[in-house]
Amino acid sequence: MADETSLPDDAPAAFAPPPLRDEDDAISAGFLEALRETLATGDRDTARLLTEDLHEADLGAILEALEPEERTGLIQLLGTAFDFTALTELDESVRVQILEELPAAAVAEGVRELDSDDAVYILEDLDAAEQAEILAQIPSIERQALKRSLDYPEESAGRRMQTEFVAVPPFWTVGQTIDYMREEEDLPESFYEIFVVDPAFHLLGTVALSHVLRSKRPTPISELVDEAHHLVPATEDQEEVARMFERYNLVSAAVVDEDGRLVGVLTIDDIVDVIQEEADEDLKALAGVNAEEEISDTVLWTARSRFPWLFANMFTAFVSASVIGAFESAIAGMVALAVLMPIVASMGGNAGTQAMAVTVRAIATRELRGRTARRVLARELSVGFLNGAVLACFVGSLAGFWFGDPHLGVVIGIALVLNLIVAGTVGVLVPMTLDKLKVDPAVASSVFVTMTTDSVGYLAFLGLATWWFALR
Amino acid sequence: MADETSLPDDAPAAFAPPPLRDEDDAISAGFLEALRETLATGDRDTARLLTEDLHEADLGAILEALEPEERTGLIQLLGTAFDFTALTELDESVRVQILEELPAAAVAEGVRELDSDDAVYILEDLDAAEQAEILAQIPSIERQALKRSLDYPEESAGRRMQTEFVAVPPFWTVGQTIDYMREEEDLPESFYEIFVVDPAFHLLGTVALSHVLRSKRPTPISELVDEAHHLVPATEDQEEVARMFERYNLVSAAVVDEDGRLVGVLTIDDIVDVIQEEADEDLKALAGVNAEEEISDTVLWTARSRFPWLFANMFTAFVSASVIGAFESAIAGMVALAVLMPIVASMGGNAGTQAMAVTVRAIATRELRGRTARRVLARELSVGFLNGAVLACFVGSLAGFWFGDPHLGVVIGIALVLNLIVAGTVGVLVPMTLDKLKVDPAVASSVFVTMTTDSVGYLAFLGLATWWFALR
Repeated sequence: MADETSLPDDAPAAFAPPPLRDEDDAISAGFLEALRETLATGDRDTARLLTEDLHEADLGAILEALEPEERTGLIQLLGTAFDFTALTELDESVRVQILEELPAAAVAEGVRELDSDDAVYILEDLDAAEQAEILAQIPSIERQALKRSLDYPEESAGRRMQTEFVAVPPFWTVGQTIDYMREEEDLPESFYEIFVVDPAFHLLGTVALSHVLRSKRPTPISELVDEAHHLVPATEDQEEVARMFERYNLVSAAVVDEDGRLVGVLTIDDIVDVIQEEADEDLKALAGVNAEEEISDTVLWTARSRFPWLFANMFTAFVSASVIGAFESAIAGMVALAVLMPIVASMGGNAGTQAMAVTVRAIATRELRGRTARRVLARELSVGFLNGAVLACFVGSLAGFWFGDPHLGVVIGIALVLNLIVAGTVGVLVPMTLDKLKVDPAVASSVFVTMTTDSVGYLAFLGLATWWFALR
Repeated sequence: MADETSLPDDAPAAFAPPPLRDEDDAISAGFLEALRETLATGDRDTARLLTEDLHEADLGAILEALEPEERTGLIQLLGTAFDFTALTELDESVRVQILEELPAAAVAEGVRELDSDDAVYILEDLDAAEQAEILAQIPSIERQALKRSLDYPEESAGRRMQTEFVAVPPFWTVGQTIDYMREEEDLPESFYEIFVVDPAFHLLGTVALSHVLRSKRPTPISELVDEAHHLVPATEDQEEVARMFERYNLVSAAVVDEDGRLVGVLTIDDIVDVIQEEADEDLKALAGVNAEEEISDTVLWTARSRFPWLFANMFTAFVSASVIGAFESAIAGMVALAVLMPIVASMGGNAGTQAMAVTVRAIATRELRGRTARRVLARELSVGFLNGAVLACFVGSLAGFWFGDPHLGVVIGIALVLNLIVAGTVGVLVPMTLDKLKVDPAVASSVFVTMTTDSVGYLAFLGLATWWFALR
């Protein structure tokens, strides 16, 4: 239904905006068209009408669906009606493009309205000069708070935290606490627990809001305090923090500075993004893609970021090729070997990738801790042997039948079993070793694992064939 | 420090438990040893002392660190002091093992103490007979609630929801609501918003607890209601629900039955597990590993679950091999071709995997919606061409130099560019097509992508070489 009260006098009597999303859940063509119409005519009232009740996530989706040159146009047309929180919902490349095009004064104005964590999230991607230009236009107190967050390392708890929170002394009663929350203006938009602090702002514990609500007014806060709070140092890496939230099912956690003083709060909605990011990073890393690559990146940026992996793969491919090179005369004598050898290498590569993916995830989710490497290794060796033996029967029969030579079938079968056992071994050992060396196993494992399974595949098959057929 | 008040008289005067976790954050050997000691001697008091203040996640980690045969021993030694919530923190295979060994009466007793969502989570993995045996020992009202949740499909909102929640009519005041929460015994352990319902239990809206706390007692609840609530049908798939939580930064959401009546609530801590699971599934699927594989599975189960992927890979490997087979005479005439051909195939496979991983994730996170396939495809084609051209120079020089034949360098270079363009194309088209066909792109893409890049790699290189060297 139309919201007629906010319509200007000259607007049509009934305003029915087109549906926001189509059946694929994408922003609908009709909605985008209506919005483009307002951009073309500079019709601010209709633009505001179209976007006023939208959630920041939907507004962000609209910006991404627009052409790059239309995005700042829309933001400037909306003016003060534009909710800058929407910028936190964008891919980094889109956000940076918009922020670079908008006047610094407009960004400063918009960022001031936000919770501190959202403001920092928007500012942190900009280069130092632009950041400084925007910060200069923000009043001193707010600027100091933002600067302090920005001084913490990237991907740290200090960067992600919100500096607005509710803290009370332990000797207050539930009634005093409720009265304080009712009267104090400058509290976060929503929160789930309150912090109990001493005069030096050291955290004594937390109280869930539902516990405050369910207790009588005269109850002292000190009786409700949950002391098993989970403190996060502001310099802690966000991945460690996410792990803690997951393990202990937290909804929020206190962030403390180097002196143990409460400086902010992390809430689960920020952590959900971190968990998603980290899982995404692992998946992309295993496939040799830069963790930060987004589907909206430019061709040149994408090509450059993917190049190093392909370049490394070139060298490992030459290593495997040199193994084949050592058997040139065997291949010249029996071309069937060249036809069949990639089968052994490829199946080994796949088995190695399976073992590696499981190991990398087990390391990432800390499941491997407490299990001995020996136990995991023994398991993968056995799996490799079992599957190798069964597959060897199929591959051996197919290959022997194809070239009418049962000996060839036996040789490829044995080579396959060997390579699948090796695949299981390196699939476990490579990520574990990299982890011990403090290298992210997700990033570097694939190169080593496939190099090994390729080389061993060729070596086992061609070597065995040379020996077998020379003996015959 | 020791908690002496709960020590039995004959215990040592000071009880200092060993540290729970070692420097690797795994359960420490010392702690496990102390626990095993109590198991050996049946020393229930010390066992309880060791575990009484532990978070369910830590208790779960201890169970996983113990040998399988020790786990039920510990649970039975602890008796009523064992918190069954810990079972929700275990790998499925460990949980099932424990539940099968424990007497049904003990499980029924333990499960009754839990929130409904945790109870369902524990019961759902058991087979129907065991489930029935345990449910039979739970009082009727609780049993009906559990059964209703278990009747919803696996991985649906109805399975994950908690059936305990706070619902009030809109005409109540803040004061009435607070008084109700103070007096009502049967409320969830902790909650973040209250639901406003009509007499038929249709949801009218939600109120964040912080808004209740910050309003004066006479304020009617109807004034605080946020009507932009996000309703979840009980049959909705958990992945869709997780997407909604992420998109709108929700902390909890109401679950409704087919008549639109409020039946439960989903909270972010359950959703965090879903998000983690789904990302995990994508990563494992891309590597050809069953989503449910856990590091604690048996060898036989693991081998069987990984076999189908390797078996499929066997056929695709034979397809690629048959491409090589068509060029037997060319290879017989020039063995260098056999040595170099895997380089083209392998680098194409890697480039294809990169494009595929990005596309699969963009589909999973719904980022691809609203972007035309054409735009994404054009981007990958360009990236493939760019990286192909640069790498062709390196590979061509190395190969030409190795075999002392610049022609070979030119041929492999051109073949590489072609294969990298094809890799980008199939890396995008295969997952997108599978998604259109309602097949999970993460599960099936790799097979098709690597088969294509292998076959095209061999075909381009060997075909081009045959043509080029025949011409010379």
